[in-house]
Amino acid sequence: MKLALQLAKEAFDKDEVPVGAVLIRDGTELLAADHNRTAELKNSLAHAEKLVIERALQDGLKYLSDCTLYVTLEPCIMCSGLIILSRIPRIIFGAHDSKAGCVGSIYNALRNKDFNWNPEVCSGLLAEESAALLRDFFKKKR
Amino acid sequence: MKLALQLAKEAFDKDEVPVGAVLIRDGTELLAADHNRTAELKNSLAHAEKLVIERALQDGLKYLSDCTLYVTLEPCIMCSGLIILSRIPRIIFGAHDSKAGCVGSIYNALRNKDFNWNPEVCSGLLAEESAALLRDFFKKKR
Repeated sequence: MKLALQLAKEAFDKDEVPVGAVLIRDGTELLAADHNRTAELKNSLAHAEKLVIERALQDGLKYLSDCTLYVTLEPCIMCSGLIILSRIPRIIFGAHDSKAGCVGSIYNALRNKDFNWNPEVCSGLLAEESAALLRDFFKKKR
Repeated sequence: MKLALQLAKEAFDKDEVPVGAVLIRDGTELLAADHNRTAELKNSLAHAEKLVIERALQDGLKYLSDCTLYVTLEPCIMCSGLIILSRIPRIIFGAHDSKAGCVGSIYNALRNKDFNWNPEVCSGLLAEESAALLRDFFKKKR
């Protein structure tokens, strides 16, 4: 999670929305790590979670069922869907996102039994640092 | 929608989940059209809607705010998120998907006012033909 937060800080310095994500396999192997790149790629879909999940799946894995995803901000609806479809079993995120989050805020999608995949979810890790970065970013933008 | 259904039939013939999607700009211009390619690409994320939305955004568009998305099956949670984030204003889909659909089935995400984008949604167009293809596909798979 410290690496995810460091990536979020790098994003901040590059004028990207400061969110970082890290995908770890079997508790030790770093499979992918990135930050939001919506500005650089001029693509509103380039969320940190999407970049790391798609990179890991490019390596020929069908599912990410032995991975843990660390992300500094509560995943949105698209990223919650990516987590379900790629069958990640464990998600650890930092700050809640009351405006767009779908892992407790707008929806609690990862705990909704109507879906065929319900990962374990842990929230609040380095939440204050993650939220402060986002607050500073949007203050700078105004 | 007839083109989307034709693409779904092509998918069926290629042993792909038979779902087709078409993205039209300004009511006339065909921006992208494709079918599900999860088998060919060995990627569980390769839904028809995702392929057409990402192709259209690759052309340098920031948002798809003058587009209509036609898709033969109710979008899942990931694809509902892609629709919201790419700001497509109009979605027309065929069959409902009680197991994974998030535009009326599990969630009604595109009409949820908590999100900052609520497209117009129309369902049921060529629904019987779209659903029959899927039924035949999963019957064949069993």
